[in-house]
Order: sequence, then structure tokens, then C-alpha cells
Amino acid sequence: MAQKGLFITFEGGEGTGKSTQLKLLADFLAQRNIPVITTKEPGGTEVGQELRRILVTGDKDKMDAVAEALLYYADRRIHMTKKVWPALEEGKWVLSDRFADSTVAYQYYGYNKRVPYQTLENLYKLAVGDFKPDLTILLDINPEIGLARSLAKAGHMAVKETRHESRALEFHNNLRNGYLEMAQKEPERFVVLNADKTIEDLHQEIVKTVTERFKLD
Amino acid sequence: MAQKGLFITFEGGEGTGKSTQLKLLADFLAQRNIPVITTKEPGGTEVGQELRRILVTGDKDKMDAVAEALLYYADRRIHMTKKVWPALEEGKWVLSDRFADSTVAYQYYGYNKRVPYQTLENLYKLAVGDFKPDLTILLDINPEIGLARSLAKAGHMAVKETRHESRALEFHNNLRNGYLEMAQKEPERFVVLNADKTIEDLHQEIVKTVTERFKLD
Repeated sequence: MAQKGLFITFEGGEGTGKSTQLKLLADFLAQRNIPVITTKEPGGTEVGQELRRILVTGDKDKMDAVAEALLYYADRRIHMTKKVWPALEEGKWVLSDRFADSTVAYQYYGYNKRVPYQTLENLYKLAVGDFKPDLTILLDINPEIGLARSLAKAGHMAVKETRHESRALEFHNNLRNGYLEMAQKEPERFVVLNADKTIEDLHQEIVKTVTERFKLD
Repeated sequence: MAQKGLFITFEGGEGTGKSTQLKLLADFLAQRNIPVITTKEPGGTEVGQELRRILVTGDKDKMDAVAEALLYYADRRIHMTKKVWPALEEGKWVLSDRFADSTVAYQYYGYNKRVPYQTLENLYKLAVGDFKPDLTILLDINPEIGLARSLAKAGHMAVKETRHESRALEFHNNLRNGYLEMAQKEPERFVVLNADKTIEDLHQEIVKTVTERFKLD
């Protein structure tokens, strides 16, 4: 029987370099002949792409935090049932750009707890059950640096995914503190890395973390 | 202060004539100078229109019952906060083609209870709180008659909203029995009307119901 795959999630605020680092880790694993797929939330599936477009574009007040949480969880449920779980079953490693911690960070901490924590836990239970990532890599950065990076990138995008970037800095500070709090609560699942360094340096740290954690040597 | 508006929902399976009857009732109320708006779920708002398209078109297996329930509730939350509650605040009557009972009927009864009832109650609480319709008009019909009507109508539609119609007849029988069970549980909110009659006869029954219930004479 094929070894069950591993589920690694990348978390952090805007402009922390999650997608770049995810891609580099996927390349590293592929070079070692580890079967790997990369994915993201929201938008890891075809239906999810449509939900992502609704979630990350347009006016920041077009829906409230409760509606957002429900949409993110709908996307997540489709993502798990149609893509993540089937790939893990086939023994693949799955690297995901964001997962459930993002919902807690944005809808609970970012919005000053407008959606009760227990509600988000109930939604997790409903959509994901007892399943958890094997490793969550939290890329941490001062929001002022991260936002500047992220908006610079958006300048080159055809569809401007800047609905979150347009929120106040306070929101992003709440977000960062929330992530760090979550990481403290689950130290066995989270690894927190300072993202304010070069792409290559950060990549090497991630490689070291993954190599040690999953005994790849 | 303007009188608070009333929220009336139309429920029932495919092809029961909900949208036709809703429109006729709206015309009747407008003629009596009652301020009224008509709306629907899913798709009562701009964002909701996009969610509706995702929900009612395409392959019936593109998402499971849990994902559907989450999407319907995201649509509902946006519908309530952006359209229904503001209109009621302004003293308008709001007539909605489907509401939360549809989710229980389809995702709980229709799918043989694949989504726990308690889960749907929790989602209701999260998205709608303690608010309830003032009246729910359940149009009841033998599914074989209803489906034939509904598919005949879809033949003339540009976008075929037939994702639900393509399910087995058993699903629609479960649905119908579920609706009737819900109506029995809340007799003060529900009125059940036999929809297997002419449009005009059914309209007159609805007018009688609404006139008596809300003392319009």
C-alpha cells in the first residue's frame, strides 16, 4: 500500500511570500521524487475559483464577516472532498496556500471577533471533521512591509485581488497577532518563520524544517 | 413610525408554481397600496446571483450536500443583511421565492439526512438568528406532476437551471414528505395549499389566506 500523503499548509498575512515559497518547496520535493501537488484556498477547485473571485474582488462591504466565513467554508468543503483528500489517499503530498487558520485569522481576529470562535470551530467540524494539516508553516512579517509587497504585486495583476488589502492597517495587525496566538496554542502543528528575508534564505529555512520534521535525509 | 413590514416565503418542490403565485400576490398587494418587494433564494442579491448560478447549474455531483448547505447559507446571510432586513425596516412586505425551509427540505430530507438536522439549525442560528418568516406558503404537488411542469419550463430557458430536476424521483418524494413534516411541526407559520389546480384558483386561495391572516379587509 502506498504511504498516505502529507498535508502542509502555508499561512500568513498579505505579502508574506506564501505562494512563492510553496512553489519552491514543491520543486524541492519533486526533485526528490516525492509525488506532490500544490493548491490554494480559496479557489483550489473549479467551483472554488468562482467562489474565490467573489471573495477577493469588489467592495469590502459587499458581504459581512459571517457571510464570508460561510463562503470560505463552502470552498473548503469542496476543496477537501474533491481534491485534497483524494490526493492524500493516492499517497501524494499536498501543499496548500492557506487553509482553515486563514479563516480564523481574518474572520475572527481580523474583524475583532465579530464571528464567534465557537462558530468557526463548528464550521470546521462540519466541513473538515477531525482532519488536520500535518504541518502549518506560518510566514510572519510586519504588516506594513507585507502590504507594500502585496500591493506592488497587484499592480501587475489582470484581476486586482485587493479586497483584503484595502482594509485598515489595524485589521492586518489583528490578523498577525491572531496568527501568532494560534501558533502558540498548537506548537506541534505550527512552525513560525520570519518572512522578512530573501526568498532563497526563507526557502532554505523551510527546506530545513520539512527535512527534519519528516526525516527526509 | 412606519409599520414594520412582513416577511412571506413561498416553499415547495420543483414546478409547484411558486414564482408565478408570488408575482400574482405581489400585484394584489400593490393594488391595495401595500409597499411590497419580491425576491428569491438563492440569488436575491447581486453576489447571490453568482452563487445561484453555481448552485443550480452543472453536474449534480460537483459538490456534496454539506458544501451546498454552506453555500445556501452564505447566500441567505447576504440576502438577509443586504436586502430583506433593510426592506422590512422600511415597512415593506417582502415576498421570497424559497427560504430556509428549502435548505432543510433539500439538504436534509431530500438527501436522506446526509447533513444532520442540528447542523442546519446551527447554520440558521448563525446566519439568521431568531428571525422567522411571518407566513410560509407551502405549495404541495405530486412530484411527478411538478417535475414534468418544471422541465417543460426549462426547455425555454437560456441557462438550464435543472441541476435539481436531474435527481431521482425518490429525492423529490423525500423532499415533499419533508416539507409536509415541517409544516406539521409549525402549523402557526405554515399554510399548506394543494398546487394541482389552475393558476387563478390557487391565487384566490393565497389571497384568501393572506387577507384573513393579516386582516386586510
